[in-house]
Amino acid sequence: MILPNGLSAFPITPADPSGCVDVGALRRLVTPLRDAGVDSIGLLGSTGSYPYLSRQERRRAVEAALDAVGTDVPILVGVGALRTDEAVALAQDARAMGAAAGLLAAISYTPLTEDEVFAHFVTVARESGLPLCIYDNPGTTHFAFTAALVGRLSREPGVIAVKSPACAPPEITAHLQGLREAVPAGFSLGYSGDWNTVEALLAGADTWYSVMGGLFPQTAMAIVRAIRTGDHTAARELDVRLQPLWSLFKEFSSLRVIYAYADALGVCHTDPPRPILPLPDRARDRVVQTLRGLDLR
Amino acid sequence: MILPNGLSAFPITPADPSGCVDVGALRRLVTPLRDAGVDSIGLLGSTGSYPYLSRQERRRAVEAALDAVGTDVPILVGVGALRTDEAVALAQDARAMGAAAGLLAAISYTPLTEDEVFAHFVTVARESGLPLCIYDNPGTTHFAFTAALVGRLSREPGVIAVKSPACAPPEITAHLQGLREAVPAGFSLGYSGDWNTVEALLAGADTWYSVMGGLFPQTAMAIVRAIRTGDHTAARELDVRLQPLWSLFKEFSSLRVIYAYADALGVCHTDPPRPILPLPDRARDRVVQTLRGLDLR
Repeated sequence: MILPNGLSAFPITPADPSGCVDVGALRRLVTPLRDAGVDSIGLLGSTGSYPYLSRQERRRAVEAALDAVGTDVPILVGVGALRTDEAVALAQDARAMGAAAGLLAAISYTPLTEDEVFAHFVTVARESGLPLCIYDNPGTTHFAFTAALVGRLSREPGVIAVKSPACAPPEITAHLQGLREAVPAGFSLGYSGDWNTVEALLAGADTWYSVMGGLFPQTAMAIVRAIRTGDHTAARELDVRLQPLWSLFKEFSSLRVIYAYADALGVCHTDPPRPILPLPDRARDRVVQTLRGLDLR
Repeated sequence: MILPNGLSAFPITPADPSGCVDVGALRRLVTPLRDAGVDSIGLLGSTGSYPYLSRQERRRAVEAALDAVGTDVPILVGVGALRTDEAVALAQDARAMGAAAGLLAAISYTPLTEDEVFAHFVTVARESGLPLCIYDNPGTTHFAFTAALVGRLSREPGVIAVKSPACAPPEITAHLQGLREAVPAGFSLGYSGDWNTVEALLAGADTWYSVMGGLFPQTAMAIVRAIRTGDHTAARELDVRLQPLWSLFKEFSSLRVIYAYADALGVCHTDPPRPILPLPDRARDRVVQTLRGLDLR
C-alpha cells in the first residue's frame, strides 16, 4: 500500500462536448508528470472533472493514464459519486485496473450527516478493497469533514490518507496539529488549494495535492524538493513568484485557468464540461499573458 | 402552457437499494394527490431524490405517474443534472412523455457563475421545448439565484416560473416584491420550505411547492383553499397546528421525515438512496408518534 506524500499532480481530463475523454490529450498531459518525477498523479480529481464523466469514460481515462505512465508513478483515482453503490463500482473499477488508491469525496445533494458519510466511506473501502484517500472538498461537495470524523475514518481498514482544503497560513499549523492528534501515526495528511499549500508543507504536511502541478510539474517539484532539502527560503521565494498565478486561481477558479492555458500551450484544445464555460476572451487573454510571463514548466 | 399555482405536491420516489423505482408504490403515492385536487404534482423534485436516479428510472417514474393520474392534474418533472447535455435529454424525455413542465435546478460541483447558469437554462429550454420552472434550491445545489438572474431568465422563451426557498416571514414580503419587480407580469412566483410557505402565500406568492403536500395533500389543500377564500385566520391556525411537523422537518430534513412516516403508514417500505440513511430508531419513533398525534391526511 502506497502512502501519498510529496507532490500529487492533478491534471485536467480533456473530453469532447459529449463527455468522451480524449485519451491522446490525456496521455500528453500525464507523461510529463512522470518525467518530472512527481510522487503521484491525482487522476479524475475535481480538476479532472470526474463528476461530469460517465463510469465508462472514467475507465477509459484510467486505462489511458496507466498505459502512459506504467508503474513509474502511482496513480490516485477519483472514485466519488452521489450514490454509494456507484462509488463502490468506480472504486472496484479503479482497483481492477491497477490504481494505487482512490480519492473519495463526500459528494452531496441532500445534505449528509457525519454518520452517513462515515457509512459511505466504510462501504466503499470494504466493497472495493481500494485504499482510500478522504477527499475533503467542501467548496464542491458541500460537506466539511471534522477532525473527529477524519479520526474515526482513519481507524477503518483501507482508509490511508486525507486531503484537506488548506486554510490560510496563520491557521495551518493548528489545523495540521488537530488532524495529527486525531489520526494514528503514519496516516497521510495533505492539502489542496495551491495558494496556501507551501506553508502547509513547511508546517509538516505530507502531501501537496496540486492543480498547478498537473500542468507545471517541474515548477511544483522544485518547491517540493526545496522543502525536502530544508531550504525553506527557496520554497517561499518560489511561492512568492507564483502569486500572480494564485491570484488568477482565486479570481477565476484553478480549473478554468488551467483549461485556458492548456489550450494556449497547445497541450489540448478542449473546453470544460458544460454548464462550465471557457473563460471569456478578456479573462483568457489576461491568463495567457500572465502565465507566459511566469514561464512555468 | 400551464402556469404553476396553488399547491404543487412533491412525493418521494420509492426505489430499491439499486435505484430501481417501485412504480406500484409511486402510483399509491400520486393517486391520492389527484384525488385531493392538488393543482400540480412535483415529480422527481429534491424530495423525489431525482439526482440519485438514472435517466431510465426517471423515465419509468414519469411514465407511472402520468399513467396513474392521467390528464387530471399537470405533472412538473425534475429534469436537473450536473451536465447540460444530460439535463437537455431529461427535459426532452419529460416533454415527449407528456409532462406539463420541467423543474430545472442549477446542480453544481464546480461552483457556477451566473452566466453559466443562464446559458444552462437557455440551452435546456431551447433544446427541449419543455416549459421550465427555475428550481432555486441553494441548500442542495449550492447555487443561489439573484432576483436579477431570475429576471433575465424570465424573459427567455419557455421559462415560466420560479420556485424560491422561502425566507422567514419578516423578509418574505420584500423578497416577493423584489422578484415581482424583476419579472414580467404573469410569471409564476412560488416557494418551498413548508414551514415558511403559508406566510409566503399570504403575501401573494402564486405557488406552494410542498413536501408535506406530497404525503398529506388534503391538509395542504385545506390551507390553500383557506387562503383562496380569503380566510387568513384559518390558514394561520392550520399552520400553527403543523408546527410539530415543521420542527421535525428542520431537525431531520423533510425528506428523511417523509420516508420514515410513509413507511409507518404502510404506503411504501423503502429507504432513501444511500448514502442517505433512514432515521435512527429513536428519531423515527418520535416522528411516528408526533405525526400520528397530528392526524394529517
